[in-house]
Amino acid sequence: MDKQIILKKRPTGKPSESDFEFQEIENHDPKAGEVLIESKYISVDPYLRGRMRDEESYIEPFQVGKPIESMIVAEVLKSHNPTLEKGDHVIGMLDWKTRQIHSGENLRKIDASVAPPSAYLGILGLTGLTAYLALDKIGNLKKGETLLVSGAAGAVGSVVGQIGKIKGCKVVGIAGSDEKIEHIQDKFGFDSGINYKTTENMKKAIKEACPDGVDVYFDNVGGEILDATLQNINKAARIINCGAISIYNKTETPTGPRPEGILIKKSALMQGFLVRDHMGEFEKAIKQLATWLQEGKLKYDETIVDGFENTPKAFIQLFEGKNTGKMLVKV
Amino acid sequence: MDKQIILKKRPTGKPSESDFEFQEIENHDPKAGEVLIESKYISVDPYLRGRMRDEESYIEPFQVGKPIESMIVAEVLKSHNPTLEKGDHVIGMLDWKTRQIHSGENLRKIDASVAPPSAYLGILGLTGLTAYLALDKIGNLKKGETLLVSGAAGAVGSVVGQIGKIKGCKVVGIAGSDEKIEHIQDKFGFDSGINYKTTENMKKAIKEACPDGVDVYFDNVGGEILDATLQNINKAARIINCGAISIYNKTETPTGPRPEGILIKKSALMQGFLVRDHMGEFEKAIKQLATWLQEGKLKYDETIVDGFENTPKAFIQLFEGKNTGKMLVKV
Repeated sequence: MDKQIILKKRPTGKPSESDFEFQEIENHDPKAGEVLIESKYISVDPYLRGRMRDEESYIEPFQVGKPIESMIVAEVLKSHNPTLEKGDHVIGMLDWKTRQIHSGENLRKIDASVAPPSAYLGILGLTGLTAYLALDKIGNLKKGETLLVSGAAGAVGSVVGQIGKIKGCKVVGIAGSDEKIEHIQDKFGFDSGINYKTTENMKKAIKEACPDGVDVYFDNVGGEILDATLQNINKAARIINCGAISIYNKTETPTGPRPEGILIKKSALMQGFLVRDHMGEFEKAIKQLATWLQEGKLKYDETIVDGFENTPKAFIQLFEGKNTGKMLVKV
Repeated sequence: MDKQIILKKRPTGKPSESDFEFQEIENHDPKAGEVLIESKYISVDPYLRGRMRDEESYIEPFQVGKPIESMIVAEVLKSHNPTLEKGDHVIGMLDWKTRQIHSGENLRKIDASVAPPSAYLGILGLTGLTAYLALDKIGNLKKGETLLVSGAAGAVGSVVGQIGKIKGCKVVGIAGSDEKIEHIQDKFGFDSGINYKTTENMKKAIKEACPDGVDVYFDNVGGEILDATLQNINKAARIINCGAISIYNKTETPTGPRPEGILIKKSALMQGFLVRDHMGEFEKAIKQLATWLQEGKLKYDETIVDGFENTPKAFIQLFEGKNTGKMLVKV
């Protein structure tokens, strides 16, 4: 019997397993144009937390009682669609189901000869695209500048740092353990790192790690680390607001020091980035990322959790910092 | 005997007249290259408050015991400088002195046939340039968009609104009295206005005045009006952080709702703007502003306070909202 995972109730604060429910489902045979596909890898991402809220956002909220969806790599089992064949690997925004019937629309075939299928959910998927396009559109990195990255050991952050090095920048990462700091230096070539969990004064620590000031801050976390960074930015600094995992689980509007005074003083900018706004440039960006990957200039981590039944748990672990790099579920 | 105004002590909170001191001075005769000039109009501006703090900023802080300086229109009384003649009107960053000896460097001759001398401290000076260049560099106004302006009756805000109308936008102003709201509609052509002093729920008031949402917010005030605007921005909105008069006098770091979540949701940007970063474009911008002025497309207000001895008082009144348009002192 096939299964699906639905949103049972909207989480309050940090999500818990009881917010989700497993249900058995039956798939009819694919009709003309349809395909039957089997989920292979499921991407779990912090932004899904936002879709669990019942509020207007850049993307529709999930409905209680309906399946969660995220990016999934699936294999075509049966095809009545002329563009897809049995055995094809495809990627798309799909329901959390072991197998499902699909119209074939907005499924993209992936080339397993370039990189393993799971890479298309990470370095060649939305996380790699986010790193590449946000730096391209907002970061405007110049050789010799200082790039600071929070969530540096994460799926997006680790790519950001490596692109920073490709562009000739000094790259400093912020992460939540000494192991992660060591890892981003050893594996991803960051120049140095700050363990925010053992650092009392982040403002001072950033100043020491970035003696020439911060030119570009790639922010995956928001909150107090953003505040501390604002105290260290250079004239004409660019702050890319890509994520704010530190505030996603807050139930009240989080407050902090007002940034407008510093932004004026430094002629600096803070700009929100959503990779979905730039779909027209995905193909070109994936080509560049794949080239760097094949040249050995980009490395990546995956944390692969085994078993469809562990999907909610894997999602929750994102908020506990348990992953290194892209968090995936192997179905 | 000539006089100067020095910073006697750094203000705490709102500046008061006792923070300033008048001193008698004597000017020597101009040497080779020098000129003796007489102040005609002194510009008082909110940003001067920032320079009274002893902290690193985009411009050097004033020194206690030394004269304040701001943009001043002066007349040349004696010239030993080949580029300037007796009777010329010049503009420059000058000391608060009735008369002074000057090297002639960084003085710009003004053409009184285009506009009266005082206009060069306002609509054809830094305030007009700020409005024009900030909209040009960050605002990127498109026909049909909604432009919201705070400090709308002020020297910068009133020009911003008029440029918005020239560009075919819907323009809504925020100001602190019903008279000002009436004035920005009658004289400057704003479509509507919000009196923030009599409005309890700014978020709701902005929503009503801007039913299609806010595309560009030109912020002269910061603080809670910025917070309320952020709740009403459209996708890809641009927030120009041009001033933050609501927080300049605060002695502790002001706090407020964190903006990073909204910036991400809306792919919006907040960018600080300092007109001094764009000096290379002043000439071109003044030409455009002067053309609009002569075509009758731009109007402006001046609040002219009489008497050099009232300069500190005029500066302090800026923070009491007593001015309509550019605040000037006629020496």
